Amino acid sequence: MADIKVGIIMGSQSDWPTMKEAANILDELGVAYETRIVSAHRTPDRLWDYGKTAADRGLHVIIAGAGGAAHLPGMMASKTRVPVVGVPVQTRALSGVDSLYSIVQMPKGFPVATMAIGAAGAANAGLMAAGILATGDPELAARLDTWRDALAASIPEEPTDD
Amino acid sequence: MADIKVGIIMGSQSDWPTMKEAANILDELGVAYETRIVSAHRTPDRLWDYGKTAADRGLHVIIAGAGGAAHLPGMMASKTRVPVVGVPVQTRALSGVDSLYSIVQMPKGFPVATMAIGAAGAANAGLMAAGILATGDPELAARLDTWRDALAASIPEEPTDD
Amino acid sequence: MADIKVGIIMGSQSDWPTMKEAANILDELGVAYETRIVSAHRTPDRLWDYGKTAADRGLHVIIAGAGGAAHLPGMMASKTRVPVVGVPVQTRALSGVDSLYSIVQMPKGFPVATMAIGAAGAANAGLMAAGILATGDPELAARLDTWRDALAASIPEEPTDD
Amino acid sequence: MADIKVGIIMGSQSDWPTMKEAANILDELGVAYETRIVSAHRTPDRLWDYGKTAADRGLHVIIAGAGGAAHLPGMMASKTRVPVVGVPVQTRALSGVDSLYSIVQMPKGFPVATMAIGAAGAANAGLMAAGILATGDPELAARLDTWRDALAASIPEEPTDD
Amino acid sequence: MADIKVGIIMGSQSDWPTMKEAANILDELGVAYETRIVSAHRTPDRLWDYGKTAADRGLHVIIAGAGGAAHLPGMMASKTRVPVVGVPVQTRALSGVDSLYSIVQMPKGFPVATMAIGAAGAANAGLMAAGILATGDPELAARLDTWRDALAASIPEEPTDD
Amino acid sequence: MADIKVGIIMGSQSDWPTMKEAANILDELGVAYETRIVSAHRTPDRLWDYGKTAADRGLHVIIAGAGGAAHLPGMMASKTRVPVVGVPVQTRALSGVDSLYSIVQMPKGFPVATMAIGAAGAANAGLMAAGILATGDPELAARLDTWRDALAASIPEEPTDD
Amino acid sequence: MADIKVGIIMGSQSDWPTMKEAANILDELGVAYETRIVSAHRTPDRLWDYGKTAADRGLHVIIAGAGGAAHLPGMMASKTRVPVVGVPVQTRALSGVDSLYSIVQMPKGFPVATMAIGAAGAANAGLMAAGILATGDPELAARLDTWRDALAASIPEEPTDD
Amino acid sequence: MADIKVGIIMGSQSDWPTMKEAANILDELGVAYETRIVSAHRTPDRLWDYGKTAADRGLHVIIAGAGGAAHLPGMMASKTRVPVVGVPVQTRALSGVDSLYSIVQMPKGFPVATMAIGAAGAANAGLMAAGILATGDPELAARLDTWRDALAASIPEEPTDD
Repeated sequence: MADIKVGIIMGSQSDWPTMKEAANILDELGVAYETRIVSAHRTPDRLWDYGKTAADRGLHVIIAGAGGAAHLPGMMASKTRVPVVGVPVQTRALSGVDSLYSIVQMPKGFPVATMAIGAAGAANAGLMAAGILATGDPELAARLDTWRDALAASIPEEPTDD
Repeated sequence: MADIKVGIIMGSQSDWPTMKEAANILDELGVAYETRIVSAHRTPDRLWDYGKTAADRGLHVIIAGAGGAAHLPGMMASKTRVPVVGVPVQTRALSGVDSLYSIVQMPKGFPVATMAIGAAGAANAGLMAAGILATGDPELAARLDTWRDALAASIPEEPTDD
Repeated sequence: MADIKVGIIMGSQSDWPTMKEAANILDELGVAYETRIVSAHRTPDRLWDYGKTAADRGLHVIIAGAGGAAHLPGMMASKTRVPVVGVPVQTRALSGVDSLYSIVQMPKGFPVATMAIGAAGAANAGLMAAGILATGDPELAARLDTWRDALAASIPEEPTDD
Repeated sequence: MADIKVGIIMGSQSDWPTMKEAANILDELGVAYETRIVSAHRTPDRLWDYGKTAADRGLHVIIAGAGGAAHLPGMMASKTRVPVVGVPVQTRALSGVDSLYSIVQMPKGFPVATMAIGAAGAANAGLMAAGILATGDPELAARLDTWRDALAASIPEEPTDD
Repeated sequence: MADIKVGIIMGSQSDWPTMKEAANILDELGVAYETRIVSAHRTPDRLWDYGKTAADRGLHVIIAGAGGAAHLPGMMASKTRVPVVGVPVQTRALSGVDSLYSIVQMPKGFPVATMAIGAAGAANAGLMAAGILATGDPELAARLDTWRDALAASIPEEPTDD
Repeated sequence: MADIKVGIIMGSQSDWPTMKEAANILDELGVAYETRIVSAHRTPDRLWDYGKTAADRGLHVIIAGAGGAAHLPGMMASKTRVPVVGVPVQTRALSGVDSLYSIVQMPKGFPVATMAIGAAGAANAGLMAAGILATGDPELAARLDTWRDALAASIPEEPTDD
Repeated sequence: MADIKVGIIMGSQSDWPTMKEAANILDELGVAYETRIVSAHRTPDRLWDYGKTAADRGLHVIIAGAGGAAHLPGMMASKTRVPVVGVPVQTRALSGVDSLYSIVQMPKGFPVATMAIGAAGAANAGLMAAGILATGDPELAARLDTWRDALAASIPEEPTDD
Repeated sequence: MADIKVGIIMGSQSDWPTMKEAANILDELGVAYETRIVSAHRTPDRLWDYGKTAADRGLHVIIAGAGGAAHLPGMMASKTRVPVVGVPVQTRALSGVDSLYSIVQMPKGFPVATMAIGAAGAANAGLMAAGILATGDPELAARLDTWRDALAASIPEEPTDD
């Protein structure tokens, strides 16, 4: 479809429960996207192809989630100039600190826009993608402002016991 | 100036040696920018004003660097929908892990595109800003591709003793 | 009410189970307080107003709890000279180390009196608030001494199997 | 002297370069204070005496700095209801993370108002002490406001190369 | 009883399930011991008394367990020359790293013989106490050798699925 | 040369002072090797080619050193079945913990034989490569035994003041 | 059996659920192996014997798993030139970071090929062993390639909700 | 010499500047000792012999220092019932956290009395050894008390600027 500007990719099916939060946000904001499993280690050629064609296919943002030695976001950033937003998936032994360091500590030349560990980070990846698209799309900018206003309005004045 | 689309802000003058790397990259890529000291704690009203006017002033990306309890990037993200790129500045006692956690672990609603700790992260913030702008600017996209190609071409085949 | 000198604020409703421990202590010590949800990121203007009016409204201590990139305590400290006691709420991935670093590593000029991570820290925030008020309130000082004596007296000589 | 309301104590002479920052702030704000070396381990009886007499001697705040297994602030908090502000001194091997954890992770009953690791934390301890005293001293409150305003006013608009 | 040479002390009743492992080992080895709750913060005078009389009462080893800002072992080491064996109790937020750092990072002058975090550490505290006593008690040395031989003999050649 | 069975690759020229330790060990053991700069991010196609041809070119071990978000060893492991030995290069802010986690925490399917951080790890990478080759080369096995014996023999009985 | 070239050893029976993943991989690849419990601390003589005879018995790789102060892999590496692959078993308090550091941070002279913490690391130990054997066994190399191809082929294009 | 009851061992000559602090303390207290380099990995047979003969040779305490994957103290504890005091030597990349975890996290059965990282820990190892010997040596107990009293007496009342 011509107007898919966001790709959500992840290292494995097991990352989907986390990454779905990004998709949910994009749904709420009316932003079209595609989802793919692209494993840096198991399907490196798929990563290569995805990265090489990303700009020409019209992608404006790639959201990439991975856990552990999470190489997917950084390798994608090496293959395309399209901005890559990285989501560190929480891990069993190291709680996602391994994912975070592997994604955020990129060398000069290949930035990955790293989000928080886990589901909040995935949701924020969706918002970051929308924010980037909104720089060139006033209608989306308005929808994003509305979404943000609604979030602020949802906060009660005082806490309640339940 | 009408075409300044990138703001580089930082918590204090002491962050400038780090954040200058972002400015240098933008200079190399021919991207105009402004630089400001905006301290989340010492000049919160300046932060408020900057955030509230950012979109209307035409900013497309805000690069924000801070160290320690680094609240500037996250607070800016709460005041504007303009994408915020965060740079954790290295610190004395905790080496920037405090800066990193304070910047990256944002709650749902307010993403900060976090870069690596220190100078490499600042340079990458410049590249990320350029990458975002390039989604709507084919000439910048071409310059960014050239910059990336030159980086790849600069790598020798073999290491040398000096 | 004229004699409310302690404000308990928190970033979200989900912090209440932790922060309630502070309220419980103040109840035990007969110290009046108010509770508010003040999100640094979702309701920054509420934070601004709360901070700007705190001293004039007669608040002597503000207890602020938050988790993750926990900006609330530090931002409140930037808006008012009223002492701010910060409680790092435990988090899923990083167990509250992120909250702790974001709260405690404040730059020169804006202290946050940081407590332990989680419920014990929240209870201690209540005690710290009482201790501060007690410097000018001999009756509260006496009640606090009694509370402390009772705590000491509650410790049995020997451990028991149940 | 009758009106000394702040005690600055530290575990050893080697903590003084750090803790002096607290004294400097109190000097700037015109707050009288005393300084003592009180080692939790080497002079526990001195700690006992200091704690037991603190309230009666009219102290309103005790600033305590220590490094490593930094027991001084917490032990002082166990001996007196006077608010204790703790400063984790930076250490050689663990950079003060050991000091921080030993000071901040106090059990329910004995709060220590923990500051940032090192010199910034010591300066902030002075400010926290002043903030506590200011709750009952309008003139000090005014001086503290002036100090804070001056800090804000000292921030230039833009960074400079030197 | 005249021949109690080992004291097992702990900060609170909640440490007993961990510290009981030390008692169990001493039971297995036929070493008499006493158990006490001695809270560094809640019952500092009890700590003082225990430490001051330990050598005269004939104690040869004190096993001290505590969690969080675990000051008990170190403070006991400051009050008596009797060797103190420290057990870091596992904690909720920081898993006992806080306990470990607070116990092990003692300054020159006051060693604490630190064991592993949790139950294995408590059992080893019992063995360390026995090993210390065995330097002057050949019969206990023989029982300890037997215990160690039995442990080695209990290891099967191959793992089984069961 | 027909008998080059070890490739030493690294992410950048700046890794050479570390990785040279691997080369030195192989020189001492008479094992031929080649050295290449292969950047996962800057020269991904070079990585692809190196990995795809490694087995056919007769390589038996690939030693790969990298720092930060150190993707080179893991990506190489995804491209070839030839055993990859990874060396985490020490980094400025995170001391190589980032390198270590990025290299060692590989997902099932793609092992990287991770060594210690820094120069000792690089030397050991050379020894590991030799140990692997020695499984099929009795002469090298003998030389490796000799090297190990010499290392043991070089240890004096007692420490000396200089 | 004459052709057993891989030994899987572990510190205790409790490591078997983790280490079985290594055995499973070797079963899938048709590689014969033996399994032994060899505790560095409880059965050091067994470790000695195993290490001293490993090369002569024809072992080409030793996979060693251990947790906590995990000395088994490193001590085995000191007793034999046969390559040792180390698996850090996840632990209760420190999640296997203790195991990882104890295994990977070996001094120059005694490499341990360290894998990821836990089950994925154990599976990868099996693959690393197979990769080492495959350097001298074309049929195993072919089976390993097939295994790797199957892993790549098992990755679906898109994530599914279940 | 018949009355050497303390052995100070270390993994390499490079540990001596740290471990010398232990020797200095023993000199001050008039406790005889021997010093040996015993590398767990390079001279495992020396370790074996030392451990096997330690009790019969009359050693009452073994002080063992090592860095990195610091196996010496734990392996010595597996070979002898003589109490082992472990000193984690500071390391380059991980500052001695690797040494600390490798020494302190011993499994049930083999305690190592772990001291602080670095020189303070080594000095304390000497004091711990003296404390253990003092349980059976009233004259040493008196000298130790004197040493401790002198330490306390050396603390001035107030800090001085130099």
